[in-house]
Amino acid sequence: MDNFDRQAARGRVDSVQQAAEEVRAILQKHEIVEGLVHRQEMPRQDLVENLVQKQNFIELKNKLDSLHPADIAAILEQLPLDARMIVWNLVKADLDGEILLEVSDAVRATLIADMDADELVAATEQLEADEIADLAPDLPDEVIADVFRSLSTDERTQLRAAMSYPDDTVGALMDFEMVTVREDVSLDVVLRYLRRLDRLPANTDKLFVVDRRDTLKGVLSIGDLIVASPESEVSQVMSTDIVTFNPDSDAESAAHAFERYDLVSAPVVDVHNRVVGRMTITDIVDYIREDAEQESLGKVGLRDEDLFSSVWNSAKNRWLWLAVNLGTAFFASRVIGIFEDSIEKLVALAALMPIVAAIAGNSGNQTVTLIVRALAFDEITRSNARSLLFKEIGIAVVNGLLWGSIAGLFAWILYGDMSLGLVMLSAMLLNLIVGAAVGMFVPLFLQRIGRDPAIGSSVLLTFSTDSMGFFIFLGLATVFLV
Amino acid sequence: MDNFDRQAARGRVDSVQQAAEEVRAILQKHEIVEGLVHRQEMPRQDLVENLVQKQNFIELKNKLDSLHPADIAAILEQLPLDARMIVWNLVKADLDGEILLEVSDAVRATLIADMDADELVAATEQLEADEIADLAPDLPDEVIADVFRSLSTDERTQLRAAMSYPDDTVGALMDFEMVTVREDVSLDVVLRYLRRLDRLPANTDKLFVVDRRDTLKGVLSIGDLIVASPESEVSQVMSTDIVTFNPDSDAESAAHAFERYDLVSAPVVDVHNRVVGRMTITDIVDYIREDAEQESLGKVGLRDEDLFSSVWNSAKNRWLWLAVNLGTAFFASRVIGIFEDSIEKLVALAALMPIVAAIAGNSGNQTVTLIVRALAFDEITRSNARSLLFKEIGIAVVNGLLWGSIAGLFAWILYGDMSLGLVMLSAMLLNLIVGAAVGMFVPLFLQRIGRDPAIGSSVLLTFSTDSMGFFIFLGLATVFLV
Repeated sequence: MDNFDRQAARGRVDSVQQAAEEVRAILQKHEIVEGLVHRQEMPRQDLVENLVQKQNFIELKNKLDSLHPADIAAILEQLPLDARMIVWNLVKADLDGEILLEVSDAVRATLIADMDADELVAATEQLEADEIADLAPDLPDEVIADVFRSLSTDERTQLRAAMSYPDDTVGALMDFEMVTVREDVSLDVVLRYLRRLDRLPANTDKLFVVDRRDTLKGVLSIGDLIVASPESEVSQVMSTDIVTFNPDSDAESAAHAFERYDLVSAPVVDVHNRVVGRMTITDIVDYIREDAEQESLGKVGLRDEDLFSSVWNSAKNRWLWLAVNLGTAFFASRVIGIFEDSIEKLVALAALMPIVAAIAGNSGNQTVTLIVRALAFDEITRSNARSLLFKEIGIAVVNGLLWGSIAGLFAWILYGDMSLGLVMLSAMLLNLIVGAAVGMFVPLFLQRIGRDPAIGSSVLLTFSTDSMGFFIFLGLATVFLV
Repeated sequence: MDNFDRQAARGRVDSVQQAAEEVRAILQKHEIVEGLVHRQEMPRQDLVENLVQKQNFIELKNKLDSLHPADIAAILEQLPLDARMIVWNLVKADLDGEILLEVSDAVRATLIADMDADELVAATEQLEADEIADLAPDLPDEVIADVFRSLSTDERTQLRAAMSYPDDTVGALMDFEMVTVREDVSLDVVLRYLRRLDRLPANTDKLFVVDRRDTLKGVLSIGDLIVASPESEVSQVMSTDIVTFNPDSDAESAAHAFERYDLVSAPVVDVHNRVVGRMTITDIVDYIREDAEQESLGKVGLRDEDLFSSVWNSAKNRWLWLAVNLGTAFFASRVIGIFEDSIEKLVALAALMPIVAAIAGNSGNQTVTLIVRALAFDEITRSNARSLLFKEIGIAVVNGLLWGSIAGLFAWILYGDMSLGLVMLSAMLLNLIVGAAVGMFVPLFLQRIGRDPAIGSSVLLTFSTDSMGFFIFLGLATVFLV
């Protein structure tokens, strides 16, 4: 990645969008020519078509060759399937690996489906072990076997290690490009050692100081290496206050540590404090973005979806969520069904009941959002959970009295029935309290059973505030009004 | 920040939670003692209380002195107001500035409210100009005037520059800690120049090569500086393919560029290509997190809320959102009101109508989420917007037929009325199409008028799918069933 000549990035970054437009323009030209040739049924049609196509393709290929792999990846994401495949086949083969790493899971699947085993093995050859591990879940088994055979013993061990850690752990995100030095040498020796390398690995802001068994002794920042006197020994200059991670640690808490302590890289150590890998800010940034994306998709029951996948595949991707919601809607519908007699007698109830359900849902979702955020930052403890619950219920009471009164007034004026207004006020107050309590407990419960509280909370909350809203409002109305 | 001795971070990061628990335990001891002393009404009570308190405070202060400012900030976030103020007053004054930078806006306001002007000016003295600019909006005007007076001319210019850029631009995020060198000197000279500095600024992975007028000529990566032969000239080793930013550029697109090209730092240049500042990955990570947080709060109509602010203040923070939603709920309620006669005749409609509204809302929210994500990554263009709309409507048709049939069957079986089932199917199909169209157009429209599409889309969508759902279902029922 870091060796790559950043031509595309020259000047402004807007150039990616511009490049994408250019690629699309060339593809369109190609389509127009193809269309014309076919329509006119010219003699020697194949030859002409081939010639014009060839010219277009050369233009397109030159454009692509000038682009950074990350930019090509961005362009592939934006293209419909057929155009995507034309571009993909024109891309220089030695960028295949980088591009596969950069695209989304959904687009990656379409690209891999287009490659044969040899191409896939070749694509992995430019990648580091930790990068191959990221691709591995999407590769056919026989390709993985071939890849293993093509690696050195060291790389094989690394790949096996990287593949053995579950997603969202430090082990799955770490790389193996650490530079290690001994503590009893002078900085001058370190500098001469580094000069023998072709290049420093990306994100090398510190060297890891280890003993013969790879036990971590300290870290030597590159800044200190440059600034300190070359005669000093590593042990005099290195820092022994080190943020380290275990391969089994949670990626989320590693991300928080990188943010908190403004880290660029950090050693990953095993239980014996031996260096086994390295975390870098680049991996952390990718993780944060992907995590945020998974979360926003997960909230509406989606897995990663290719913008241009077929209607049928996209529809299927959305089914589980719709099925779950249809189930909760059926349940709420049956709650209303219990009170059909009351509604028949006082039809205003039908028009007013959705208000009671909706506002408690909205208010409860505010509670959910705050609690999920506090959980993500480890801000909720046994000692403060109770006071938070009281606070949320307090807010529900304030808001229930305020907005319940407004809604009650609305009902009273509209239907000229004060007791209907009072039932409305009471139902809204009670249902807002339900929303606050459920909005507080559901994320805590999901977290406790090891699920992501950001994802399921909203459905469970709406289920409660809808069903309970209808039940409370129609129930009170049945007792006091009908 | 980078000078700080990372004691708290020694070993595992879990230590923050442990430290927080210890602080809480000491505070609790303090409260218990205070309670006991008061209850027993001992003679010389003040003296005893003072003694015990003093001991507790010394213990607490020692604990706090051992912590990284970011960890103290995290602990302050978790404490209720009274305990937070005790801790804040015990923190070493020279960490005040760092801590104010790290805490959330809501907690920062509570801390600043507790400080007098002199303390605030002193707190800014350990900060860089770009950091002071971050605090400035929360500081009283007279403090800002004092701060300006305490700065050097250079720093004043920097502070003025940093404060002049709107939030969410590169100018507001950049710092001024760039190290610049000339292109016609040898690497050896550069190394000797760097050795004269106390330290390299954090995140210095490259030096900016400039001419006498600060015009950017290239960048010299620290890795190349170390690896290349000391006799080479800067101009031979530097890279001229540089990702640069303008101070006016959008922070979001800068963040994408940092992710895409795996940057650690990048020069910020003016229109004449003169270096005016530096973006670092640290600022980008903070920006990404804050942006994601603002978005998730904004989606439920919240501004940043202190977990422990008063019930009254929190309730007010949530009003606007509840008012907007109450408005849309009233509107939907009036739509139902139009059809009260039909509901009176066929009360099943009341029980079934929320299903039609809910499923289209859920399905439309899936569309919104995908479109918002595609907009964030600049994946939607004029040329593909139409095919995306057709795709979303196609999915709505597939899902409408599938889930509409299931819901229709449910209605038919439950109420023994096949035409009711058919109305249900038609209404769900039509309302899912409404959801897809609105879910597609609303984010595009919000983006076009310069609003964040992630924030308002959901309310507008639910408003449409609720009102239209009731209208379509009850309307069809009125025409065909009643």
